[in-house]
Amino acid sequence: MNYKIDNLQYCKWSREVFKINREAGLDAVHVTVVYHEDYDEFLARVKEWDKHFQENSDLIFLGKSHEDIERAKLEKKTAIFFGFQNCSPIEDDIGLVEKIYENGCRFMQLTYNNQSLLATGCYEKNDSGVTNFGKEAIREMNRLGIVIDMSHSGEKSTLDAIEISDKPIAITHANPNFWYKALRNKSDQLLKTLSESGGMLGLSLYSHHLKNGSDCTLDSFCEMAAKTCELMGVKNVGIGSDLCLNQPDSIVEWMRNGTWAKKKNYGEGSKKKPGFPKQPDWFIDARGFKNLENGLKKVGFNEMEVNNILGNNWYNFYKGIN
Amino acid sequence: MNYKIDNLQYCKWSREVFKINREAGLDAVHVTVVYHEDYDEFLARVKEWDKHFQENSDLIFLGKSHEDIERAKLEKKTAIFFGFQNCSPIEDDIGLVEKIYENGCRFMQLTYNNQSLLATGCYEKNDSGVTNFGKEAIREMNRLGIVIDMSHSGEKSTLDAIEISDKPIAITHANPNFWYKALRNKSDQLLKTLSESGGMLGLSLYSHHLKNGSDCTLDSFCEMAAKTCELMGVKNVGIGSDLCLNQPDSIVEWMRNGTWAKKKNYGEGSKKKPGFPKQPDWFIDARGFKNLENGLKKVGFNEMEVNNILGNNWYNFYKGIN
Repeated sequence: MNYKIDNLQYCKWSREVFKINREAGLDAVHVTVVYHEDYDEFLARVKEWDKHFQENSDLIFLGKSHEDIERAKLEKKTAIFFGFQNCSPIEDDIGLVEKIYENGCRFMQLTYNNQSLLATGCYEKNDSGVTNFGKEAIREMNRLGIVIDMSHSGEKSTLDAIEISDKPIAITHANPNFWYKALRNKSDQLLKTLSESGGMLGLSLYSHHLKNGSDCTLDSFCEMAAKTCELMGVKNVGIGSDLCLNQPDSIVEWMRNGTWAKKKNYGEGSKKKPGFPKQPDWFIDARGFKNLENGLKKVGFNEMEVNNILGNNWYNFYKGIN
Repeated sequence: MNYKIDNLQYCKWSREVFKINREAGLDAVHVTVVYHEDYDEFLARVKEWDKHFQENSDLIFLGKSHEDIERAKLEKKTAIFFGFQNCSPIEDDIGLVEKIYENGCRFMQLTYNNQSLLATGCYEKNDSGVTNFGKEAIREMNRLGIVIDMSHSGEKSTLDAIEISDKPIAITHANPNFWYKALRNKSDQLLKTLSESGGMLGLSLYSHHLKNGSDCTLDSFCEMAAKTCELMGVKNVGIGSDLCLNQPDSIVEWMRNGTWAKKKNYGEGSKKKPGFPKQPDWFIDARGFKNLENGLKKVGFNEMEVNNILGNNWYNFYKGIN
């Protein structure tokens, strides 16, 4: 059985988007439920999702384990797995880790771009690694079955998390920096250490992480995927598109700024390009998975390898979560 | 005019304690209002203090500026200045800095013992310094007139704060580590840099910060004060007793553990000595200021210097806050 999984989307959720994901054949999507929300605000997001599940029960349902990916395949639906891009919903309370798990959370970044109570984000000048509270949180996430996601974290923090965690961790959405040097992309050494520990990298289709941005070619992306698989092994690479379909620019502004600064921060953008960047024309939404399939074959992957990258590797990773 | 100021107490507040502080002749006390509380919980603490002010208006009132210290002297009352031992009440929201100011906060530690969103605490393994959000918070605290207090912070974070802040900062309650090597006590280099920037050190009377703990002698403490004044200048040293009068041991446990860990942390204590340590017999409460006065004279300070250390230095520092 082959599964198709996009392991990071943060779209403006609607029936239209759920339909597109079904057209793309996605059996599972890890969706960002929270950026900077606290625990109560997270519960409000869960209520919004409850409504989505009720109104679109022919297309989606809440995924809690790898078995839900199997069920989605059988029922021709998409299993939605909840994740956080920041650890703000656990506030300063170790007891809330179990609460977020009970409310469906299966992935949590220890940091967004800035320092959190758990670890250091990739936009800080210095990275002191996983904190005292961070060690406690990792232990609790391991116990419950919440994946540690270090996509937006600093390098030392990520290496610490790999070492401290009893279970493999994930970088759900980023690219290697040998291909394109962005603050968010990852070093060879880190990716090697990640794969040696059984961890996964989800390749990102977000233009700020791509060589030549919106003009990145499918060939260039797939050649990068091939080199990444040489570095990490073909079993440790998947897709985490970071698709933000239909989101207004006010959302990317909020993602970057939260409430922590009075002056505006442009993050990966700039004053001239403050909004969401244009997607490359071969991946404007999840239906671009078809282009990826062709592109990956063209650079020399066999059919099984292509299927692994487009979903089976993530499926196998999900099997190890609980 | 001479003022007597204790620039850190966290007692179990009662009419009895306010009377003792008056007997000690204290014109002002910087009180800890918050350890790990969030913004709403801080507002609940403010309500409790409103009640104290109503019920004890013959003894205390809320202090907001140095002029309130003058008023307290005239009215034979104690001006109470609010401070936080952690930055948790501003949560992740720069807008809340103004709100805490409006609610009376005049001192805020950027960290308690662990990493915060603003800086690193002295109990973390690595100190990455003041964070992106920390820089924004310092700017806002400077603008409003909230003192940056680094008593529980790591060394690099403290040096960063001194450099970033436009106004002198304070270490309201700690001792030099040349005298007693505790994680909470401070290095010569840090104290020198602090004083060169116009900052203040409040000497602590908490047994875990004292040479020989509860058995520390008055002579030893006052000799340490003399050496500290040689290092920092006699204008940059005051008292921040860290008195926790009448508090039950459950409070020190909460101070250390907050809600961040499932296992118990003993902080400056140990499994054998988990509770509040006994105060030295020459400083069981603020009336010990009289002993300090005699002790400081005995080690060679003249009367003006003694008065400066016991309050005037803090009064002058308060003058520069707004």
